[in-house]
Amino acid sequence: MKICIINGPNLNLLGKREPETYGDCSFEDFYETLKKDFPLIEFDYFQSNHEGALIDQLQKVGFHCDGIILNPAAFSHTSIAIADTIRALPTPVIEVHISNIYKREAFRRHSYVSEVAQGVISGFGLHSYKLAVYSLMNA
Amino acid sequence: MKICIINGPNLNLLGKREPETYGDCSFEDFYETLKKDFPLIEFDYFQSNHEGALIDQLQKVGFHCDGIILNPAAFSHTSIAIADTIRALPTPVIEVHISNIYKREAFRRHSYVSEVAQGVISGFGLHSYKLAVYSLMNA
Amino acid sequence: MKICIINGPNLNLLGKREPETYGDCSFEDFYETLKKDFPLIEFDYFQSNHEGALIDQLQKVGFHCDGIILNPAAFSHTSIAIADTIRALPTPVIEVHISNIYKREAFRRHSYVSEVAQGVISGFGLHSYKLAVYSLMNA
Amino acid sequence: MKICIINGPNLNLLGKREPETYGDCSFEDFYETLKKDFPLIEFDYFQSNHEGALIDQLQKVGFHCDGIILNPAAFSHTSIAIADTIRALPTPVIEVHISNIYKREAFRRHSYVSEVAQGVISGFGLHSYKLAVYSLMNA
Amino acid sequence: MKICIINGPNLNLLGKREPETYGDCSFEDFYETLKKDFPLIEFDYFQSNHEGALIDQLQKVGFHCDGIILNPAAFSHTSIAIADTIRALPTPVIEVHISNIYKREAFRRHSYVSEVAQGVISGFGLHSYKLAVYSLMNA
Amino acid sequence: MKICIINGPNLNLLGKREPETYGDCSFEDFYETLKKDFPLIEFDYFQSNHEGALIDQLQKVGFHCDGIILNPAAFSHTSIAIADTIRALPTPVIEVHISNIYKREAFRRHSYVSEVAQGVISGFGLHSYKLAVYSLMNA
Amino acid sequence: MKICIINGPNLNLLGKREPETYGDCSFEDFYETLKKDFPLIEFDYFQSNHEGALIDQLQKVGFHCDGIILNPAAFSHTSIAIADTIRALPTPVIEVHISNIYKREAFRRHSYVSEVAQGVISGFGLHSYKLAVYSLMNA
Amino acid sequence: MKICIINGPNLNLLGKREPETYGDCSFEDFYETLKKDFPLIEFDYFQSNHEGALIDQLQKVGFHCDGIILNPAAFSHTSIAIADTIRALPTPVIEVHISNIYKREAFRRHSYVSEVAQGVISGFGLHSYKLAVYSLMNA
Amino acid sequence: MKICIINGPNLNLLGKREPETYGDCSFEDFYETLKKDFPLIEFDYFQSNHEGALIDQLQKVGFHCDGIILNPAAFSHTSIAIADTIRALPTPVIEVHISNIYKREAFRRHSYVSEVAQGVISGFGLHSYKLAVYSLMNA
Amino acid sequence: MKICIINGPNLNLLGKREPETYGDCSFEDFYETLKKDFPLIEFDYFQSNHEGALIDQLQKVGFHCDGIILNPAAFSHTSIAIADTIRALPTPVIEVHISNIYKREAFRRHSYVSEVAQGVISGFGLHSYKLAVYSLMNA
Amino acid sequence: MKICIINGPNLNLLGKREPETYGDCSFEDFYETLKKDFPLIEFDYFQSNHEGALIDQLQKVGFHCDGIILNPAAFSHTSIAIADTIRALPTPVIEVHISNIYKREAFRRHSYVSEVAQGVISGFGLHSYKLAVYSLMNA
Amino acid sequence: MKICIINGPNLNLLGKREPETYGDCSFEDFYETLKKDFPLIEFDYFQSNHEGALIDQLQKVGFHCDGIILNPAAFSHTSIAIADTIRALPTPVIEVHISNIYKREAFRRHSYVSEVAQGVISGFGLHSYKLAVYSLMNA
Repeated sequence: MKICIINGPNLNLLGKREPETYGDCSFEDFYETLKKDFPLIEFDYFQSNHEGALIDQLQKVGFHCDGIILNPAAFSHTSIAIADTIRALPTPVIEVHISNIYKREAFRRHSYVSEVAQGVISGFGLHSYKLAVYSLMNA
Repeated sequence: MKICIINGPNLNLLGKREPETYGDCSFEDFYETLKKDFPLIEFDYFQSNHEGALIDQLQKVGFHCDGIILNPAAFSHTSIAIADTIRALPTPVIEVHISNIYKREAFRRHSYVSEVAQGVISGFGLHSYKLAVYSLMNA
Repeated sequence: MKICIINGPNLNLLGKREPETYGDCSFEDFYETLKKDFPLIEFDYFQSNHEGALIDQLQKVGFHCDGIILNPAAFSHTSIAIADTIRALPTPVIEVHISNIYKREAFRRHSYVSEVAQGVISGFGLHSYKLAVYSLMNA
Repeated sequence: MKICIINGPNLNLLGKREPETYGDCSFEDFYETLKKDFPLIEFDYFQSNHEGALIDQLQKVGFHCDGIILNPAAFSHTSIAIADTIRALPTPVIEVHISNIYKREAFRRHSYVSEVAQGVISGFGLHSYKLAVYSLMNA
Repeated sequence: MKICIINGPNLNLLGKREPETYGDCSFEDFYETLKKDFPLIEFDYFQSNHEGALIDQLQKVGFHCDGIILNPAAFSHTSIAIADTIRALPTPVIEVHISNIYKREAFRRHSYVSEVAQGVISGFGLHSYKLAVYSLMNA
Repeated sequence: MKICIINGPNLNLLGKREPETYGDCSFEDFYETLKKDFPLIEFDYFQSNHEGALIDQLQKVGFHCDGIILNPAAFSHTSIAIADTIRALPTPVIEVHISNIYKREAFRRHSYVSEVAQGVISGFGLHSYKLAVYSLMNA
Repeated sequence: MKICIINGPNLNLLGKREPETYGDCSFEDFYETLKKDFPLIEFDYFQSNHEGALIDQLQKVGFHCDGIILNPAAFSHTSIAIADTIRALPTPVIEVHISNIYKREAFRRHSYVSEVAQGVISGFGLHSYKLAVYSLMNA
Repeated sequence: MKICIINGPNLNLLGKREPETYGDCSFEDFYETLKKDFPLIEFDYFQSNHEGALIDQLQKVGFHCDGIILNPAAFSHTSIAIADTIRALPTPVIEVHISNIYKREAFRRHSYVSEVAQGVISGFGLHSYKLAVYSLMNA
Repeated sequence: MKICIINGPNLNLLGKREPETYGDCSFEDFYETLKKDFPLIEFDYFQSNHEGALIDQLQKVGFHCDGIILNPAAFSHTSIAIADTIRALPTPVIEVHISNIYKREAFRRHSYVSEVAQGVISGFGLHSYKLAVYSLMNA
Repeated sequence: MKICIINGPNLNLLGKREPETYGDCSFEDFYETLKKDFPLIEFDYFQSNHEGALIDQLQKVGFHCDGIILNPAAFSHTSIAIADTIRALPTPVIEVHISNIYKREAFRRHSYVSEVAQGVISGFGLHSYKLAVYSLMNA
Repeated sequence: MKICIINGPNLNLLGKREPETYGDCSFEDFYETLKKDFPLIEFDYFQSNHEGALIDQLQKVGFHCDGIILNPAAFSHTSIAIADTIRALPTPVIEVHISNIYKREAFRRHSYVSEVAQGVISGFGLHSYKLAVYSLMNA
Repeated sequence: MKICIINGPNLNLLGKREPETYGDCSFEDFYETLKKDFPLIEFDYFQSNHEGALIDQLQKVGFHCDGIILNPAAFSHTSIAIADTIRALPTPVIEVHISNIYKREAFRRHSYVSEVAQGVISGFGLHSYKLAVYSLMNA
C-alpha cells in the first residue's frame, strides 16, 4: 500500500512557526516516526509553497498511489485549482489540518478542498496525519 | 480509560435512513464491533433526539470520563446550547460525522460544535468513530 | 387510510394565543369536527412543545401510516433535525400553517421542512388541515 | 360562485415542458376535469406569458368574481407589479404552484405574490388547483 | 406578588462553568439570598436544558403570575418557539443575562426573546436578576 | 413645450386602489386639472401595465418631446430594460412617485430608473407631477 | 407662511466645491433670488457642519414654522439622530438634494432622513429648493 | 439549417443608442450582411421590447428550428420566465451580448439565461452573432 | 457616591416627542424624583444633541465619578467615537434605553456602546435609569 | 497573424479529467486540428498549473503577438494577479471556457479575467477556442 | 512650507487612553519633538472631539496650507461628511493612524477618508505623523 | 542594517504598465536611487510573479534581516499563504502600495497582509518605499 503525503505552504516551517498553534516538532522528525509506526506502508512526502507545484505533484501521484493525505494549509481556503485537481483524480484524498481550523479566523472556516476530499480530519496536531493513515488502511 | 459516545437526532435510524448517505449498518451493530476492537476501553453509549437530553448527558458524563465522542448530527448546525455545554466541560470532546458534511447542503457546512470541540473527523462512515477513539487514546 | 396530525410548539394554546393571528377555536374542538367530516379516515393526533418529542413521534408513525400532516410552527424555521427525520421517512408529509407565513416576519419566510415536505399549505386558518387531508386522499 | 384561474408564463407548455417536474397532462385537459368535478362553480380561465396581460386580467376580473386562483409561475419571484395589483383587489387570491417551489433553486423560494395572497398551496401537481377551489368554497 | 424565574440551558452549571465569565456562585445559593432580600414576593424557580420544558413552564405560569424573569441563555439566539410562547402570554417577561451578551461572539448579539420581552437587562452578573425584580415591582 | 407623462402598472386604478396610500382622485381627473394649470404646455399621457409597452412609448416620444415625466410604479424596482431605454434617450426624464417610496417596504427603496433619471420627486401625492412640470419648465 | 431652510455639512462651500457636481453658484446668492421669487413667504436660513447644531435648529424651528426644507448632505446617510428629531416634529420636512444622489456612490443611495421626510426631491440643482417651496405652498 | 435570431429590449435602437457602447450600425444593416455571409442558412429575425412577446416567439420557433441565437439584453438579468422557456425547449439556445457584460455595472454580471443556454458569447460587438452562427454550424 | 447621567440627542424633547414610545414625562421632572429617591447619591446631569459634546463630557467626568449612566439614544447605533471614549475611561458606564430598542427598526438593534458598557438596561421607560442606579450602588 | 493560446491549471488533464464535463479529447490532439484548420495563422501554445508561470507567459507574449486566447480555468475565479497582467498588456485577450461556467457551482460564476478580457466565450467545448480564433481574425 | 495636523476624537487622551494600543506619550509632547525635528516647516495643530469642528477646521486651512495630516480616529469609519470636505479641498490630505487599523475590529477596516486621501499611513505609532511629513515634503 | 524589498506580481512591468496609475519609472531605476539615498543600509531586492516564490523568499530572508518592505500587489487581496508566512517571521514586515488601494475597485480594499504587517503605507507612488525605509530606521 502506497500513501503520499503532500503538505502545503509554510508547513516546512513546522517547529519554528507559531509553536503555540502548531507545536514544536518539525514535520521531518514526525515523518520518521510515522514511517516507523507503519512499516508495511510505502510513504512518499512532498512539500511546497507553490500552489502550482502542489497541483503538479497531485497529478503525478494521484493516478498511481492508494491514497493521498493532503494538508493544503492556507491554500484550503483560496485554491479552486487544487480542488479541481482532486476532482480529476481516482485516488481518495484525505484532508488534514494540524490545528482545528474551525476555531480560528472566519476565513479559515471554509475549505474548497473539503468539498472534494473523501474526509476531513482537523485539530489533532501532527496526530491528524496518523488518523488519516488509519482511515486509508480501513478503506 | 472511559470514552462516552453520544449520538444526536435521527442516528437511531442508522441503517434504515438514507442508506446511500449513511450506510446500511445500524449503530448498535457497529457499537458491538467497536467494543470488541478496543477491549481495554470502557465505553458508554447514549442517543437522543432531544437537544436537552444530549445536554443533560454531556453534563452528566463530562466531568468524569476521559473523552467524549459526539456526533451532534443536525444539532451541529443549530445548537449553541450544546456548544455552551462543551465549553463548560473539562473533558475533551471529539466531533464526528459519518458523511462529509462539507460536501452537502450549505447549511451543513457550519457547526457550532466545531468551534469548541478539540478536533473534528468527518466523512469516514462509521469508521469516523474509530478514528476518534484512536485520537483520544493518543491524547 | 390512516393520517397522523402532528402539531409543534404553542399550538396547544390555539384559541387562547393571539386570536387575531390564529383564530379563537382550540385545536381540540377543530379536531372533533375534522374526524366527523372524514369518517372513513383513521386519524391520530399529537402535539408537543419539544422538538425531540416531535422527532420521536415522526419516527414512530412515519413508517406505518399513509400520510402525515405536520404543522411545525416555530420549528419550521429552526429545526434541521425535524427536516432530517422527514427525509428518512417513507410516508408523505404535508406541511401546513394556519397563518400565511410569507406575510409575517422575515425569519418566518424560510422553512427547513418545506424543502423535504411533499407539499406546503399556508394561510387558510384551520382549514389548512382539511386541504391537507384532501391532498392525501388524492395521492 | 365564480372562480377565475389565471396562469402565468410557460404554463401553456404544460404536458410538453419538463414532464419530470410538471407532469404530462396539459392544463386544458385538466381544466375540463376540474369543471366536471365542480359543476356548480362558474370557472374562467386565462393564461399569458405577458406580465402586463396578467395584470390587465387581474384588474378585469378582480373586482367582480368570488375568488382568483393564480399560478404566477416565474413571475412569482420577479413581479412586484402583479403583487401590487393583488393588493388593490377586493377579491381573495390563492397562489398555487404545481411543483414544490421550496425544493428547487434558491431564486424560486421567494415569491412577491405570497406576501399578498390569502394563502399559498405548493407542490401537489395539478391537484394544487383543486385544493385552491376547496379553500375558496370554504371561505 | 408572584414572580417566576426561569433559567435556560447550562445555568445549572453556574459556579462550575467558566467562572471568569459567569462568576463562581451557584444559582441555588443566589436564589436563597434573593428570597431573603425580597421577603414579600413569592418566588418560583425553574431550570431546564430542554427548550420544550421551558416552553411548557412558560405556558404553565404565564397566565397566572405577576411577572417572569427569563434567562434564556443559549436559546435566546436560536429559539423562535420560546419567543412565540412569550408573545402568547399576558404576563410581562423580563429577559436577563448574567454576562453582557453584546460583548461576546457575534451570534450572541441577536436574541429572538428581546423582540418580545418587556425589557432586557444584560451584564450585571447575578445582580441582573435583582434589577429585574425591581423592574417588576415598579410596573 | 411638449411634456409626455408616462404611468406604469396599476396607476390606472388610482382612486380605487389603496386610497390611504395613493389618495382617492383618479389620474384622469387630475390630468384635466394639470392641463388647465399649464395651458401653454402641450401634454401627452400614456399608461400601461405592460413593461414592453412603456418601453415602446418611451422610444416613440423620447426623441421628440421636451421632457418626460415617468412614474414607473412597481417597474422602478425591477426593470433594467426601462432604465436602459432612458439611457438611450436624448430627452430628460423626471421620475415621480405619488407616495414616498423610501418609507415603505425595503424592496421599494431601490429604483433602477433613479440611476438614469435627471431627478427624482417622491412623496407629494399627485402634486409630484406638478413639481416635475415646474422642474422641466426651469430646465 | 414661514419656511425654514436648513443646510448640512459642506454646503457653505457651494460654488467653490466640485462645481461639476454642485454648480458654481453660492447658496447665499441663490438665497437672495429665492426670496425675491417668493416675496410673500418668510424665509429663514441656517447652515452648519455640526450634526448637533442641525438638530438644535430643527428643534428650535420645528414646532413653530410651516415647513422645513432640509438638505442634510452627507448626514443623510449617517445620522439617525437627525431622523429622530424629524420624527418628533409636527412640521412637515422636505428633503432636498442638489445632485441626484441615486446616481452616485452606493453609500449615498440610502438616506435615514428619507424614511421620515414628507417627500424627497433630488437632482435638480439649486432648483430643488424651489420645487420644495412649491410643494409646501401646495400642502 | 434554420437559425432564429431573437433580440430583446432596446436592440431596435442599435446605431442610435449609446454608440460608444453598442456601435453605430443598426441591427437591420448587420442582418443583411449576416444573411449574405451565410447563404446556406435560413435565418429568421425577431425583436421585441416585450418579455412576453419574446417568450411567445421562443415557444413558437423553439420546437422547430435548429438553433436560436438570443440576445436577451436587459432581460438577461431579470427574467426567470425567459429562462424557464429555454429550459422547456429542445433547440439549443446561444446567448450573445454585443458588449462585454462582465465589464459593466454589477447588476449586469448575472444572467438567468446563462444558466440554461448552451453557451455564452459576450463582448465582440455585432460579431458576437457571427460567432454564435459558427457555434451552431459546428454543433 | 457620585453618579453622572448623560443623555444623547433628542432626549431634551422627552415628554413632547412621540409620547406613545417615550412617555409624557420630561426628563427634568423625572430627574427631580430620582434625586429625591436616592438622597445619598450625588447626581450630575448633562444632555446634548452634539456627539462631540457628549464625548467632551464623558472625558470630563469619566476619570472622577463613581459611575456613568449613559443613554446615547441615536448615537448608540452610529458613534464609534463615543464607544472609543468609554473604552478609555476607568469609570463603569451603564447603557440605558427608555424603549426596548430590540423591538424597533433593524438599525436600532446594534449599539456600538453596548460592546464597551458594563451592562445594558433597555425597555423600562424612565425606570431604566433607576435600575441603572441600583446596579451602580451594588457594584 | 500570431495567436498565443494559454491554458491554466488542470487543462493538461483534458481527456482524462471528468470527461462528462470536459469531453475526452486531449488538448494536444485538438491543437493539431486547430493548426490545420487555420494554416495561415501562427499559433503558440502554453499550459501551466502555476499562476506565476501563466503571468510570466502573458508578459512574455503579450507585447508582441496579435491576440491571446486564455482559458484561465480555476484561476478565473481567484486570480486578481492574472487580471492585472492583462490590464497591462496592449494585446487583446479572449477568455474561453470549455464548459458553460454559468451553469456550475456558484463560485465559478465570477471571473476576474472577464472584467479585463475583450470578450468571453463559454460553453462550446473545445470549439470555444475556434470561435476565439474567428473573433481575433475579425478584429 | 505649512503643514496642518488635525486630530479627531479621543486623541486628546493620548498617553492616558489604552496605552497598550496607543502608547504612553501625549500628543502635545510628541508635537514639540516634531517641530524640533522639522525646524523649516511651519506646523499648525488642531484637535477636536466634534465632527463639525473638524470639518470647520479642514475648510479653514484647506485652501491655504501645503498639506494636511489628518488622523480622523473613530470618524474615519463613520463620517462621510469629513470625506466630502476633503473632496472639496485643493490641499493634499494624508490620513494617518497610530495603530494598524487593519489588525483591529472589523468596523475599523473601512475608512471613508481613505477613499479621498492622497495616501494612508497606518500602524507606526506616533511615527506615522513623521512619515506623513516626509511624504508631504517629497510631494 | 539590512532591509529586504520584495515585490509581487506585475511590478516588473513598472514603467510600462498603466502609467496613469503606477507612474513611468521602472522599479530598477528607482532602486538605484533608493540605494544612493540610504548608503548605510544594505538592501536586497526580489521580485516574482509566483506566490510560492514570494513565500520562499520571505522564509529565506525573514529570519535574518532587520526589516522587510513588501509590496504584495494583487496577492494582498488573495493570498492567505503569504500572510501566514509573515505571521511566522520574527522580522517586521511593512506593507507598501504605490497607488492608494482604498480608492480603487472594491476587491482591492481588503488585504490579508495588512492584518499581519507591522504597518501599511499606501498611495505615495514609489515614495511609499522610502517612507517604509524611514519607518524601519526608526523602529
